[in-house]
Amino acid sequence: MALETARLLISCPDVKGIIAAVAGFIAEYDGNILEADQHSDPASEEFFMRVEVQLESFRLNRKTFGQAWAHVADKYRMRWRVYWGNEIKRMAILASKESHCLSDILWRWRTGELRVEVPFVAGNHAEMAEQVEPYGVPFHHLPITKETKQQQEAALLNLLAEHEIDFVVLARYMQILSPELVARYPERIINIHHSFLPAFAGPRPYHHAFDRGVKIIGATSHYVTDCLDEGPIIAQSTMPVDHRDTVEDLIRKGRDLERVVLANAVRHHIEDEILVSQNKTVVFD
Amino acid sequence: MALETARLLISCPDVKGIIAAVAGFIAEYDGNILEADQHSDPASEEFFMRVEVQLESFRLNRKTFGQAWAHVADKYRMRWRVYWGNEIKRMAILASKESHCLSDILWRWRTGELRVEVPFVAGNHAEMAEQVEPYGVPFHHLPITKETKQQQEAALLNLLAEHEIDFVVLARYMQILSPELVARYPERIINIHHSFLPAFAGPRPYHHAFDRGVKIIGATSHYVTDCLDEGPIIAQSTMPVDHRDTVEDLIRKGRDLERVVLANAVRHHIEDEILVSQNKTVVFD
Amino acid sequence: MALETARLLISCPDVKGIIAAVAGFIAEYDGNILEADQHSDPASEEFFMRVEVQLESFRLNRKTFGQAWAHVADKYRMRWRVYWGNEIKRMAILASKESHCLSDILWRWRTGELRVEVPFVAGNHAEMAEQVEPYGVPFHHLPITKETKQQQEAALLNLLAEHEIDFVVLARYMQILSPELVARYPERIINIHHSFLPAFAGPRPYHHAFDRGVKIIGATSHYVTDCLDEGPIIAQSTMPVDHRDTVEDLIRKGRDLERVVLANAVRHHIEDEILVSQNKTVVFD
Amino acid sequence: MALETARLLISCPDVKGIIAAVAGFIAEYDGNILEADQHSDPASEEFFMRVEVQLESFRLNRKTFGQAWAHVADKYRMRWRVYWGNEIKRMAILASKESHCLSDILWRWRTGELRVEVPFVAGNHAEMAEQVEPYGVPFHHLPITKETKQQQEAALLNLLAEHEIDFVVLARYMQILSPELVARYPERIINIHHSFLPAFAGPRPYHHAFDRGVKIIGATSHYVTDCLDEGPIIAQSTMPVDHRDTVEDLIRKGRDLERVVLANAVRHHIEDEILVSQNKTVVFD
Repeated sequence: MALETARLLISCPDVKGIIAAVAGFIAEYDGNILEADQHSDPASEEFFMRVEVQLESFRLNRKTFGQAWAHVADKYRMRWRVYWGNEIKRMAILASKESHCLSDILWRWRTGELRVEVPFVAGNHAEMAEQVEPYGVPFHHLPITKETKQQQEAALLNLLAEHEIDFVVLARYMQILSPELVARYPERIINIHHSFLPAFAGPRPYHHAFDRGVKIIGATSHYVTDCLDEGPIIAQSTMPVDHRDTVEDLIRKGRDLERVVLANAVRHHIEDEILVSQNKTVVFD
Repeated sequence: MALETARLLISCPDVKGIIAAVAGFIAEYDGNILEADQHSDPASEEFFMRVEVQLESFRLNRKTFGQAWAHVADKYRMRWRVYWGNEIKRMAILASKESHCLSDILWRWRTGELRVEVPFVAGNHAEMAEQVEPYGVPFHHLPITKETKQQQEAALLNLLAEHEIDFVVLARYMQILSPELVARYPERIINIHHSFLPAFAGPRPYHHAFDRGVKIIGATSHYVTDCLDEGPIIAQSTMPVDHRDTVEDLIRKGRDLERVVLANAVRHHIEDEILVSQNKTVVFD
Repeated sequence: MALETARLLISCPDVKGIIAAVAGFIAEYDGNILEADQHSDPASEEFFMRVEVQLESFRLNRKTFGQAWAHVADKYRMRWRVYWGNEIKRMAILASKESHCLSDILWRWRTGELRVEVPFVAGNHAEMAEQVEPYGVPFHHLPITKETKQQQEAALLNLLAEHEIDFVVLARYMQILSPELVARYPERIINIHHSFLPAFAGPRPYHHAFDRGVKIIGATSHYVTDCLDEGPIIAQSTMPVDHRDTVEDLIRKGRDLERVVLANAVRHHIEDEILVSQNKTVVFD
Repeated sequence: MALETARLLISCPDVKGIIAAVAGFIAEYDGNILEADQHSDPASEEFFMRVEVQLESFRLNRKTFGQAWAHVADKYRMRWRVYWGNEIKRMAILASKESHCLSDILWRWRTGELRVEVPFVAGNHAEMAEQVEPYGVPFHHLPITKETKQQQEAALLNLLAEHEIDFVVLARYMQILSPELVARYPERIINIHHSFLPAFAGPRPYHHAFDRGVKIIGATSHYVTDCLDEGPIIAQSTMPVDHRDTVEDLIRKGRDLERVVLANAVRHHIEDEILVSQNKTVVFD
């Protein structure tokens, strides 16, 4: 069984002594470090760190941590967040017509592989309801036309707020989110794109891959930003294909890639393993 | 030991009875089919075939084959080529400053892995001579400046003609060949590009990959056409990278990909396993 | 949409003229060959062939084929089978406690990815019923103890016979089938083993992999024979792991491998792409 | 350019405060931590750590480090080693008839990819001399028969001692080393085995893989112990194969795997990234 932990994520200018300061602080409050990962980016001279502290003996909690930690954080000019492991994140899933990513995420959630709550699924196609129904999760149908787009996004924002959603998974959701919605959930909306980005951004990547005659296909999971398919990449994978594969074969084979790449990205997010800087991710796995 | 064979490569409109006609023709002349691969492209309605016939009992040879075969080829409107296995292809290698692909190809040639002749290596940097020297292959130094480019290409064309070169391998040769030279060797110049095309075409792909924060790197081998990095792809491969990898790490790791991808493409070419149509390859491996 | 086809699978001693004879026969009856794959094994001097013929114009059907084909089959001493594509195979699935392979196969079936009928699922753990229920497939609970084993296998055999099952998928079914049952379905029972065989055969392969400190894990799908985990291998795959992975991580990561490897093996079987000889498979994909 | 660093490798019982103690010690002596990796093995309750400290400002050196460090090391009952980055390791290579791993390692050394010295290569086949000669490294021919085996190993031990060799690479060296020699270089002899161990240990693994009909081949690099092919695994990789691949194809394809797997293991060793415990490795890459 996993231990209850606090996870501290830090980024700051790279100077001497940060690890000693952080580890010393945790030891001072009787914390036991279960994992510590750090990374220095020589290009940007930024320092990144993730520390996982066992809560059992730790003499700080979510109320007292901030004040105690402030002098370390200030000294090193840190951006930081702390996640308390006994808080389960709340994840919403959006989907369109393709069910493979949606079904896969729900299956991983139900079997306990993803430690998360799923207050609802929403989508612009009514037929997805039956995929969701066996999992006992409410499905909200938000059909989108040019005329209704704005109003449906308002409805979606309401749902997200009402259910206190922490992050959103686009499980092959084929609608472009408005800049307002994206701004409301920075680094908290995870998309799966069915190509090895930056190649074949935009619609119908398997068709473009087929036309180009590539010998691999891929899938890419990334945080959503205002620039379509250009957000920070969390996970990517490819598989070989050849001339015998039709577009339909690429689509079928790609489903197996997409499911796994998206699930890995979602797991990293749930486990607080991702730091973003300059449109790139540090993923401490 | 490999048997002496003839390899027949065919492409034609896809109609009924082609395989029977080809196999029947070969049986008629007492040929033994060692391998037969075919592919029907439903999109273009084109048919592709590769047949490898054991020469031992075959009652046709390079002088008599054409006339006997003509009535089958004409009936099905075939484009076709035949390669007689006892003819060893003549391969020239061009390189610039990076030696990993060059050394690898030479090593595979010397150990007999690539059944080919290497009349010469040429390059625009003199220091490559010492890489080539242990293999006993002549190295021609063709230094290129804006002023000398045209004249050096003429020299290169002379070398290719003089040595009766069948095909050219660009082993990380960083000069763009003129349309004239490319036109002289259609589907006979093989390049290795250090990215998963179509992403990161052009110069410095590892730097661009690093800047974009991708989680994979790749290599692509393709036939050279007039459009830079857009020729028909023969082979591709990728490997995972992460935030810990510097640009230098990408370059180092990528070398292992490039060597293998290029060698596979060269082997397919030597074995007459590649057919090209509409800027895509059929690779019968 | 896929065309209706007949698939002819052949194995025989490797002599001259087989392809011509087969292709000529099909042309004689106005068949159009959509795919033809062949393989000569130089070690055993056996020849293998798979031909897919479009039914539309073919002047033979399941009643008339056998007699017409006999003189070719006899001449070359062929073992052969023909599958008529308008016949959908009937697949039974057996499972124990782990649901990932079962759920995955059912999902692929429901979405039409696997063109097959699923008359029932059976298993030795009652809780699997709720995994199966949403798919509308009957679940038969066959709890197994030392005392009931023989009787439950009789029940299973009855179910298989009654439902006219063509082949059986062991989706992480943790019971060893009796030699009688295996003999009844030769090359028609597909198992998934959670290791890269022949390493870690038998129970608890992830634990053994962890103890050995391997840097990869794997999954293997094979036909079941009387020798545990030693049947002919259909599909295999691996993925990297490292010292950070606990046994639980291996099990979790392995699930993604197992699902895909098993699904690929089942697809090859459904598409009649597998020939078995001397405990090895030829898979024409 | 890489900075001069000290690398500190630690293993000890897993208790609270180790990271703080180590990081605090380094900060106390004005060291800048460039990389810090740690791993807690919950099974053995062991803690592993690797710290890389920039030498520039560090107020300890190889003479003074031990005494200063002793009180930390003693307190936590550490086994530890420290490597000073300005000391280049001395690597001997042994080979037999197959040249691909030998050539590859030498090539990586000459191009600077492996930061190491290579005082000599030795082998039991004279023809390997010409592979080594272009690299300007002495080759010692130690032909081995039943009668000469003991005497040649004595000669080898002399060479290793005389050249102050730090570690030995068996680049497809097909002789079994004596327990005495192995005991002299614990965790300092790196072998490449041409299979995915623990499958196909012992001689002729590609032949056994072919006979078993596996759909993947692999390569494994490990430290040599007294148990043949059972030492702690450093690196492993696999690639797909199919029924078309002859034994010769497996051997050819496998060479590309072996080269890369061995090179990765050697690089990890040179960079002091490997810790061994209970016949398993922790590889901090």
